Amino acid sequence: MTEKYILLATCTDKVGITSLITNKIAQYDSNILHLDHFTEYDHSPNATGQLYLRLEFENVPSLKENLETTLQTHQIDFKLFDNQQHTKIALFVSKEDHAFNEILLRVNRNELPAEIVCIVSNHENNRQFAETLHIPFYYIPSNEDKAIVERKILDVCSEHQVELIVLAKYMQILSDHFVSHYPNQIINIHHSFLPSFIGANPYKQAWECGVKLVGATSHYVTSDLDEGPIIDQDVIRINHRYNVQDLRKIGRHVESSVLAQAVEYHVLHKVIVTASSKTIVFN
Amino acid sequence: MTEKYILLATCTDKVGITSLITNKIAQYDSNILHLDHFTEYDHSPNATGQLYLRLEFENVPSLKENLETTLQTHQIDFKLFDNQQHTKIALFVSKEDHAFNEILLRVNRNELPAEIVCIVSNHENNRQFAETLHIPFYYIPSNEDKAIVERKILDVCSEHQVELIVLAKYMQILSDHFVSHYPNQIINIHHSFLPSFIGANPYKQAWECGVKLVGATSHYVTSDLDEGPIIDQDVIRINHRYNVQDLRKIGRHVESSVLAQAVEYHVLHKVIVTASSKTIVFN
Amino acid sequence: MTEKYILLATCTDKVGITSLITNKIAQYDSNILHLDHFTEYDHSPNATGQLYLRLEFENVPSLKENLETTLQTHQIDFKLFDNQQHTKIALFVSKEDHAFNEILLRVNRNELPAEIVCIVSNHENNRQFAETLHIPFYYIPSNEDKAIVERKILDVCSEHQVELIVLAKYMQILSDHFVSHYPNQIINIHHSFLPSFIGANPYKQAWECGVKLVGATSHYVTSDLDEGPIIDQDVIRINHRYNVQDLRKIGRHVESSVLAQAVEYHVLHKVIVTASSKTIVFN
Amino acid sequence: MTEKYILLATCTDKVGITSLITNKIAQYDSNILHLDHFTEYDHSPNATGQLYLRLEFENVPSLKENLETTLQTHQIDFKLFDNQQHTKIALFVSKEDHAFNEILLRVNRNELPAEIVCIVSNHENNRQFAETLHIPFYYIPSNEDKAIVERKILDVCSEHQVELIVLAKYMQILSDHFVSHYPNQIINIHHSFLPSFIGANPYKQAWECGVKLVGATSHYVTSDLDEGPIIDQDVIRINHRYNVQDLRKIGRHVESSVLAQAVEYHVLHKVIVTASSKTIVFN
Repeated sequence: MTEKYILLATCTDKVGITSLITNKIAQYDSNILHLDHFTEYDHSPNATGQLYLRLEFENVPSLKENLETTLQTHQIDFKLFDNQQHTKIALFVSKEDHAFNEILLRVNRNELPAEIVCIVSNHENNRQFAETLHIPFYYIPSNEDKAIVERKILDVCSEHQVELIVLAKYMQILSDHFVSHYPNQIINIHHSFLPSFIGANPYKQAWECGVKLVGATSHYVTSDLDEGPIIDQDVIRINHRYNVQDLRKIGRHVESSVLAQAVEYHVLHKVIVTASSKTIVFN
Repeated sequence: MTEKYILLATCTDKVGITSLITNKIAQYDSNILHLDHFTEYDHSPNATGQLYLRLEFENVPSLKENLETTLQTHQIDFKLFDNQQHTKIALFVSKEDHAFNEILLRVNRNELPAEIVCIVSNHENNRQFAETLHIPFYYIPSNEDKAIVERKILDVCSEHQVELIVLAKYMQILSDHFVSHYPNQIINIHHSFLPSFIGANPYKQAWECGVKLVGATSHYVTSDLDEGPIIDQDVIRINHRYNVQDLRKIGRHVESSVLAQAVEYHVLHKVIVTASSKTIVFN
Repeated sequence: MTEKYILLATCTDKVGITSLITNKIAQYDSNILHLDHFTEYDHSPNATGQLYLRLEFENVPSLKENLETTLQTHQIDFKLFDNQQHTKIALFVSKEDHAFNEILLRVNRNELPAEIVCIVSNHENNRQFAETLHIPFYYIPSNEDKAIVERKILDVCSEHQVELIVLAKYMQILSDHFVSHYPNQIINIHHSFLPSFIGANPYKQAWECGVKLVGATSHYVTSDLDEGPIIDQDVIRINHRYNVQDLRKIGRHVESSVLAQAVEYHVLHKVIVTASSKTIVFN
Repeated sequence: MTEKYILLATCTDKVGITSLITNKIAQYDSNILHLDHFTEYDHSPNATGQLYLRLEFENVPSLKENLETTLQTHQIDFKLFDNQQHTKIALFVSKEDHAFNEILLRVNRNELPAEIVCIVSNHENNRQFAETLHIPFYYIPSNEDKAIVERKILDVCSEHQVELIVLAKYMQILSDHFVSHYPNQIINIHHSFLPSFIGANPYKQAWECGVKLVGATSHYVTSDLDEGPIIDQDVIRINHRYNVQDLRKIGRHVESSVLAQAVEYHVLHKVIVTASSKTIVFN
């Protein structure tokens, strides 16, 4: 695999930004391998646009520091990633194992440039599979005071230098305080096609409503529960023969794949969250 | 095309109903061409189930009357259709022509066993296409008192012996009084994946929400606006590059096909509406 | 779960077959829970049709024997299953683990009424996961004479009273002799949308062809390699950014789900193979 | 709509190309509205890559000529389009009207930046709809010598300054001589998921094969029939209940939408055909 950098950048749109960045890269004799430039203008008159950029380019000496200086000078928000550095993930799970297994297996097959550095669960039942794969498993039950529980979890994440938390059917609500430690770094899977069926028991809601498709939504976690920026969604066709249990069963497959897709986008550094709480997914 | 009958039937589930019906058909030496039997039990203990049946069988003399008597005797709700009788449709449209054209063209290509007997519109712009196909076009503007407008429309439908009203982007709300004349005989297309984005401007709502799929929902019209029994739904993948206008444009294609699909199910006599306002679609 | 029987039946179409069967069931006071009746006529004049039936009905004493007698008397081909009897599966795998894991995990989560009674592999790498789940793992390398290898495998299957063999990326071709022991009881996953890209390295073929969707096909294994009756297929959208390795990676997900779907159809007794080597899937 | 240019460019990949182009644009104070940069390396060692670029940028005076000079100097293959110039399309049709209507209606609704300048048909039945929309309709029957027929058609296309020919179910094979006049400017719809079911009657082939999905493929026409570069493909789920006629009917919908999608990509200048006869679709 070529050593390369991945740049995610955003700023108020104006003439010359892409030229500025590509010049700097060419100046160091680095070849651009990918560039995607997206400008969004809102619908008001005299709108100012916002520019979103993603680049992949060869990793050559001195380029990183010089490019960073250039971007800072021009007040461009950015993140710069080295594709050799795999994202360190903490995987949170409760009892249900389907989304948890899907993430573990994809990472284990090297489908994702990521490393599961720890597993946190409020149940013991998924310990064995974690240990088979030699991943530290932390059983942190939820029956204590929430502040204490979250303090323990934050300590685990800190110890393992976690960069992304994946809630693979972790059935606990995280406090704003917890979430503030990992802004746009916690991905959840919601078992409905949001914004439909917010709240408890979405498959029962879907069954009662008589919808002909059920879905799942992966999103970043913010202080608004079930309302964070949507990363990916998918649906699956059902019919009147499906009862609530059948919906839960078929729903697992779409939950697993939609969560895994969101994690893939994140660890490939393809996602920028906008000021209006939506995602740009450079795909 | 074989002459055949189509039976839709429902009753409280009990032993022997399907045997009773298939016996009667066999007794008249009619061959069954299709049979679909669905039983729904709710989740409560001691639940009574409901049986839903759809059959297709050869049209032979005397069978119809005798079968009807049998079904009535056993208190089975049913509808019995002759497949040679095409459903008479009134197509309602406002300015936008996409769903309107889709229905007209499919009927015109003989894809559906239906006849468009009249077109009702509160705008003149779709008159030409209607007249090219020699279908009576009634321009009934909406700027009069609603009761008067609906009286005129009911008269048109009555004159043409309309059996199904298809709202192909007819942007007027029908009164409960109007709807009561055509129970489960009015099909609407809603331009969102219900129950998401009920109400005005669903594509703008979808854009602001940042969803990754947009959809459409065809449903029977009841007195609850946007809440009638769902017949079909579909979605289409979008991304951050789509602005609100792009969503409206791509949405037209899914609206057209989801409405046409619902009309097809209805005129093929594949739909039963349940007591809980859901649809059984025998497909 | 209700104790019930599932009947799959087929015969030359004629008046009265469904009546005959449903009468017999009603006579024993058993309630029908599902019935699907499909008749296929070919396109020639004076065609004789073929009837295919699937029923689910309550398990009541004496019904089974009497129904079997009736079916035999009328020369109806049939299989009758008890839904309490889980299908005994032998899972065959080589090195790649994705389809293998998917089947194991779905069975382990009780999503399928099946039991994995043994695992056969020509590689050792999947032993650990098998043993974690306490399933006997047989390492039978392929470097011996094929007849000897297959003899060993047949012995294993016989010992475990295997009813279905699932080839979860088992990269060996089975001889006609082997296949003849399990007619329509071996399911394979082919990594293309058949009949496209038969033969070696379908993802490379797909990439060179420039297709915009790649797919997978699950089918029963017959003596014609890659030509057995198709059970299920699905595709996934790709674009020019996918190289051959990317196709292999994304292909794994569709392979896994299409194989699992076929296994589900089989163990729910929803599949009949026709004389022309196609499948009726009652779904 | 903003006045803008669209650039499609390709050359051997090397450092500095994107920088060169974006600099030139910035130098004229034109804002880039979109940029997509794709590099393809084949799988051999010491491979040389190929760069493909698509840009949208504001139309400012003098920029066009200067940019063209720069691109020529650096031996970059390119096409430069003005988004105010709608593509002139000749629509070819035989008897079947579904794909023909779909293209006409989308253009008529201003969904595509294109103009249908003429219609060519070897049948008369679609004349009326063409004339309703005031589009010249040329009836050129196919029962003459092919060279004479094609000469007449070329004259019509030439007279109308046609830039794109869309074969909307035009059931005649075009000669290599004809095709050579419109390289990568003729789009056809093939009624199968290529490379499956090449040749006559693909729906009958599909039915006999027992596939569970049927599809359609839009492609540029080259001298290899059914083998030109694929632009778009889609599929639709079927089951054993569909006979050959049903496949033809449902196939029409996917044919229409896949052809319309390809035409949209082309007239939005999103497609580059590669040396290996595949398409880059910047979407």
